[in-house]
Amino acid sequence: MCALWSPVATPRRLVTPPQLPRPMHRTTAILLIICPDRRGLVAAVAQFLADHGANILHADQHIDDNAKLFFMRVEWDLEGFDLCEADFADAFAAIAEEHAMRWQLHLGRRLARVAIFCSRQDHCLADLLHRHRAGELACDIPLVISNHADNRALAAFHGIRYEQIEVLPRNKAEAEADQLALLSDAGIDLIVLARYMQVLSGQFIARYANRIINIHHSFLPAFVGARPYQHAFERGVKLIGATSHYVTTELDNGPIIEQDVERVSHRDQVDDLVQKGRDIERVVLARAVKYHLAHRILTYGNKTVVFD
Amino acid sequence: MCALWSPVATPRRLVTPPQLPRPMHRTTAILLIICPDRRGLVAAVAQFLADHGANILHADQHIDDNAKLFFMRVEWDLEGFDLCEADFADAFAAIAEEHAMRWQLHLGRRLARVAIFCSRQDHCLADLLHRHRAGELACDIPLVISNHADNRALAAFHGIRYEQIEVLPRNKAEAEADQLALLSDAGIDLIVLARYMQVLSGQFIARYANRIINIHHSFLPAFVGARPYQHAFERGVKLIGATSHYVTTELDNGPIIEQDVERVSHRDQVDDLVQKGRDIERVVLARAVKYHLAHRILTYGNKTVVFD
Amino acid sequence: MCALWSPVATPRRLVTPPQLPRPMHRTTAILLIICPDRRGLVAAVAQFLADHGANILHADQHIDDNAKLFFMRVEWDLEGFDLCEADFADAFAAIAEEHAMRWQLHLGRRLARVAIFCSRQDHCLADLLHRHRAGELACDIPLVISNHADNRALAAFHGIRYEQIEVLPRNKAEAEADQLALLSDAGIDLIVLARYMQVLSGQFIARYANRIINIHHSFLPAFVGARPYQHAFERGVKLIGATSHYVTTELDNGPIIEQDVERVSHRDQVDDLVQKGRDIERVVLARAVKYHLAHRILTYGNKTVVFD
Amino acid sequence: MCALWSPVATPRRLVTPPQLPRPMHRTTAILLIICPDRRGLVAAVAQFLADHGANILHADQHIDDNAKLFFMRVEWDLEGFDLCEADFADAFAAIAEEHAMRWQLHLGRRLARVAIFCSRQDHCLADLLHRHRAGELACDIPLVISNHADNRALAAFHGIRYEQIEVLPRNKAEAEADQLALLSDAGIDLIVLARYMQVLSGQFIARYANRIINIHHSFLPAFVGARPYQHAFERGVKLIGATSHYVTTELDNGPIIEQDVERVSHRDQVDDLVQKGRDIERVVLARAVKYHLAHRILTYGNKTVVFD
Repeated sequence: MCALWSPVATPRRLVTPPQLPRPMHRTTAILLIICPDRRGLVAAVAQFLADHGANILHADQHIDDNAKLFFMRVEWDLEGFDLCEADFADAFAAIAEEHAMRWQLHLGRRLARVAIFCSRQDHCLADLLHRHRAGELACDIPLVISNHADNRALAAFHGIRYEQIEVLPRNKAEAEADQLALLSDAGIDLIVLARYMQVLSGQFIARYANRIINIHHSFLPAFVGARPYQHAFERGVKLIGATSHYVTTELDNGPIIEQDVERVSHRDQVDDLVQKGRDIERVVLARAVKYHLAHRILTYGNKTVVFD
Repeated sequence: MCALWSPVATPRRLVTPPQLPRPMHRTTAILLIICPDRRGLVAAVAQFLADHGANILHADQHIDDNAKLFFMRVEWDLEGFDLCEADFADAFAAIAEEHAMRWQLHLGRRLARVAIFCSRQDHCLADLLHRHRAGELACDIPLVISNHADNRALAAFHGIRYEQIEVLPRNKAEAEADQLALLSDAGIDLIVLARYMQVLSGQFIARYANRIINIHHSFLPAFVGARPYQHAFERGVKLIGATSHYVTTELDNGPIIEQDVERVSHRDQVDDLVQKGRDIERVVLARAVKYHLAHRILTYGNKTVVFD
Repeated sequence: MCALWSPVATPRRLVTPPQLPRPMHRTTAILLIICPDRRGLVAAVAQFLADHGANILHADQHIDDNAKLFFMRVEWDLEGFDLCEADFADAFAAIAEEHAMRWQLHLGRRLARVAIFCSRQDHCLADLLHRHRAGELACDIPLVISNHADNRALAAFHGIRYEQIEVLPRNKAEAEADQLALLSDAGIDLIVLARYMQVLSGQFIARYANRIINIHHSFLPAFVGARPYQHAFERGVKLIGATSHYVTTELDNGPIIEQDVERVSHRDQVDDLVQKGRDIERVVLARAVKYHLAHRILTYGNKTVVFD
Repeated sequence: MCALWSPVATPRRLVTPPQLPRPMHRTTAILLIICPDRRGLVAAVAQFLADHGANILHADQHIDDNAKLFFMRVEWDLEGFDLCEADFADAFAAIAEEHAMRWQLHLGRRLARVAIFCSRQDHCLADLLHRHRAGELACDIPLVISNHADNRALAAFHGIRYEQIEVLPRNKAEAEADQLALLSDAGIDLIVLARYMQVLSGQFIARYANRIINIHHSFLPAFVGARPYQHAFERGVKLIGATSHYVTTELDNGPIIEQDVERVSHRDQVDDLVQKGRDIERVVLARAVKYHLAHRILTYGNKTVVFD
């Protein structure tokens, strides 16, 4: 079912030690697997790792009974493991082929490199930068890109490069080319749209498939599109929400990573919803980024498996 | 600013005899008002009530700044109040007309009479009947109507009349006529659709406008219509919800009274969503019924003001 | 570091197929393991199971870095598994001894047998019986024991034997002897205290160590002991809670299985807290029972690992 | 019962011009009242205000049936109100004395002046400063006081004066004298302890009674005192919380303003609790500050009434 990950290009560079969420002293490797469900998968992987000296720290599996798919995330201590990154694919090939596995290996010490896109609102940007400084996010953040100048001082306070690229209907292709050049130069692994108010093109998205996380300010699939708080107010809902998801070409319809809600009442006008919503957006976006950085997310079809 | 508390010493008057706290011995009246917002509304109502010997226990107001509407719920102790129900309208007419008020008076001792409609699933029905027996619901429940026979024993256990009225495409008008006759004979004030799986006609709804409460098993407006848990599963949401609302002719689009959600994960299959959802449905429906019975809900446009 | 499970007595009879939470067509076995953390534990277990034809469906692990303990729950499809229950211990002995494992096997088709203890309040009892009838609880409930007569009709409605055993200061030992005889005759595996208002003796608890689940009507460790809602009201908390836990000889201090809370305000008097609290108690107790029945709980020290 | 809505037709008056909803242009006054409960209080206050040209926008009351106390918060539009602040007390004296009222008036345009105290952790400080800049907090923040130098740059980024006053056992009285001088010079109305890790003396607290808000990193009254996350971990709770409260001389036992919780599991080590806890602390402290600034909090005994 469903061609999930492209067979090579992306994964080989994804080498991020999940030092978070806890102050892990151990250096670990993480292997993510999706394949058709069948007998013996857990044992096959566990035995392969044991044969190479791996001490498994965590192994999560999930079986989607409808899709007949098997999902696995296994993390092991690199101390004593006898395969380097370059040799892993060859060594694992027999098992991977036998079980028609698609897999990703995250091994080594290089931190993921994250670019944050924002527009004028700064609450998600400020939150992510603060968390990063507090050691909550196991990544480097070398770049903030915005279509406005407003948040330059905030980025500067955190010592992060800020590039303003204006996006207008007439220059959109050019603007994206500039953005892509910046991302490529900075060796970016993950793009976080922190209330970035521009729609990305299909070509742009394809370049970073499953590597662009957006925060939408509603409880999707309710209130897709623009001005969700206004629509929530008009509908008279008693809870408002936020949704973090991977960006796909279908607007606000990518795989959902995390959602949360907050109670509101008739006393809350649209501006109150906006204000209360900010608190949810911050947390829901930050959780998604953490899950991604810890390689806890597997996507298939239009859904996610999030091993927490 | 900040004139601090006026000087009278506090503690000496903090008498705290641990008496029966709630089961209100007082008999109270409740007046609900909607009118255009203007100066002096609170004072006008408060003065009118004081002039007639009312001791106001609670007075809630709300102003919708967009709609320029004023909402009020005022509850007072009937002891010492010098107007009977029959005379209230005449006495209040001058104020009501001056301010173009629409108002409801709930006065006296008669309990609301509630009919519950159900189909085969019994979790909301069982919950409501249990709460009623536990004294949580200030109403009589003289009648359960169902299009199936399944819940007859449950109603019998609670000593409540159970009428099965089969509803088929060909006999729908006739079935509704039978239902309406039963409701009328039983003097029903409120109809609660406790997972009743039939759509009511516009004529039926008009007869009980703002007096039919439904529980929908999704976080509306997401997943309107049939099989919401299936759709929630397919969309891969991370929270599921339930919504209680007044029934209008537009399916699943009536004024929302209450909503709540529960966290789910990739581990939850459709059946798990159904099971977790039951717990939310029960609570969200019961809260709506309680609000209605306490005359805490004002509806306007397609929204509610719920004074809690 | 804590003798956890007694080495034999209990586990060998615990043979409960976790048909919940989802309509599992497969018959599965579950192995629970606690042992000192060291290399190769996952692989050792996975390989042992694969050697005997097991298809692992789920394998959860947890490592407590402070206690240096390893926890595992592994569930496999019995189809094709070549060991019967009687032979498992011998076959697994080498691994278990090598790694100093304490383990439980739950294999086969017999449903757990649950007794519910209650006093006068019926909300938790009614909830459990309703869930059982709805197929949410994978167990038999052959017995309800109460120190009052109040809930006899409710048990009868569900076709369950109801034994009233009055408990007074002077006859407590005798009453417990009667209770234990009933439990033994009924082959009870798990006791659920559904707002049972008597304190069990140390001897009684020892007989059913880690097999008695209680619901306490506060967010423990706040408001230990009697009248927690009264104390919550006096302290002016803004949330109230409920806690399900295994019963130990230290009152309200056993390993916590599950907790939840509900928002309250100054408007809520003690009776309102009691009423709102019931909704939390029901859900928190039911979740704990489900986790236990699905063999998802491992206890150590005074804590639980709950694999959800 | 059930005089339905009086006949005036609704929809024609539902004018909904989508104007700026909140940023209240109106200048309002707020009166807070506590007094023994008796007949006619609402009417007396409403009539007094009407007599002086006030248009009441909101009036909330609460009656504590145990304490026989009446609480009221009334807010009105100053336009047309014929009393200035200086004259109010005289004009209101007759009513206040008759009913033994303690009252506060908040009238006029001066913003409250807030000082934030912090130690080394910056998450609450950064959050409050960000909210202030975003317009969420209706106050001036002229001063940050800390016993450490760490957050000087953060305060500077927001253009706020930062005073470091080291607090040691031997210089505590002197340090507090310095703090009080700074507070007095800056005309501070409210002190917010944003994870300030020093205990204030009784004399200090008395100077700002009910005007010092603290955030405690547990769900009080559980885990009073130091290292609550460590204790929560050891107890094995399944939810962690935070509590904002007014500071009194009894440590962690002042009137609770707001609380919230977050779910945790066995997977969360102490550091994870700390990290998850930060998100709750931020929100729970900010809500308390907002309630205080909007004059929504009445304290009595050791409890609060929070009119939201």
